[in-house]
Amino acid sequence: MRLLEEKIISEGRVLSDQVLKVDSFLNHQIDPFLMNEIGKEFALRFANEGITKIVTLESSGIAPAVMAGLYMNVPVVFARKRKSLTLTDDLLSASVHSFTKNETNEISISNKYLDEDDRVLVIDDFLANGQAALGLVEIVKQSGAKVNGIGIVIEKSFQQGAEKLKEFGFRVESLARIASLSNGEVQFINEKVGELV
Amino acid sequence: MRLLEEKIISEGRVLSDQVLKVDSFLNHQIDPFLMNEIGKEFALRFANEGITKIVTLESSGIAPAVMAGLYMNVPVVFARKRKSLTLTDDLLSASVHSFTKNETNEISISNKYLDEDDRVLVIDDFLANGQAALGLVEIVKQSGAKVNGIGIVIEKSFQQGAEKLKEFGFRVESLARIASLSNGEVQFINEKVGELV
Repeated sequence: MRLLEEKIISEGRVLSDQVLKVDSFLNHQIDPFLMNEIGKEFALRFANEGITKIVTLESSGIAPAVMAGLYMNVPVVFARKRKSLTLTDDLLSASVHSFTKNETNEISISNKYLDEDDRVLVIDDFLANGQAALGLVEIVKQSGAKVNGIGIVIEKSFQQGAEKLKEFGFRVESLARIASLSNGEVQFINEKVGELV
Repeated sequence: MRLLEEKIISEGRVLSDQVLKVDSFLNHQIDPFLMNEIGKEFALRFANEGITKIVTLESSGIAPAVMAGLYMNVPVVFARKRKSLTLTDDLLSASVHSFTKNETNEISISNKYLDEDDRVLVIDDFLANGQAALGLVEIVKQSGAKVNGIGIVIEKSFQQGAEKLKEFGFRVESLARIASLSNGEVQFINEKVGELV
């Protein structure tokens, strides 16, 4: 997605060969116009999947997921990273390790909001090793619902997550695919001639 | 806001005289259509305040804030509830106690995303004792920016938050104002004759 790639080039900060910081438009400050375009793009790419629900993870997944939900006309459920005292219902849970933050979180969704008839689109901000996406997939499976697609804002294609998810048979659509962060530069996977490399 | 009040009546669950649970459309599952209407309504109410930035708190503030940001054409910054290892910039911070969850969080925003020229709209999902809103106000003040309004999705008017914020001189706009949760029933403050009571 050209607009997103341009934003990453102009505002993303490469902290290491592994870490891209996009705090100015996605992970801390949010650009609502860009989120709206991202929502439209996910809706377009998954238009034929019969999606009935979007599942994401707090906090950075919420903005792109809600915009996608608006254009797909389906509810969004966000998994919480720890249990809330007022969330007393039966929980579907999975363990997710973040290598970037070096911490493991229990992520949970109330079983009230996933039904075995649901066709679920999982949306997340980043895909690196696939831990968060796999945790969300595990939760959806516990409910008996089906994962019909995985939508990612920024994929670090040099890590194993996308490949792993595709091996499991999931359709993964990433709006920006990063081939490398070496030498402090963002290199995208060149999917169409004439696009940003 | 009629649509929101109807949603609260049909889907909200009164857990006690103090606690209203709206996990089906705001705090866990999110209704994107309703969030879109909420965003429009905030944009309308604060149209003349010259707002340059919206500040909210993860996670439940993000959806209404991003929709408001879309219609007001301004960026959104969400305060985080704990420090992230990749968030290395100088932080503006405040302590916020949640009586509902019985826990105190340090909330933080990077000083990169608030400027002393900013005219800030603070948005949050609930207003009860005003702790979260006051924490956000404190952070905005640390940056030198000005709080030009506080937009709340659901105000529990029988608690002290709204009064406190108004005494401090802030303009508070709450889209649903709850007079009482007694006897398991939601009673709204009746602002216009003919509206839901």
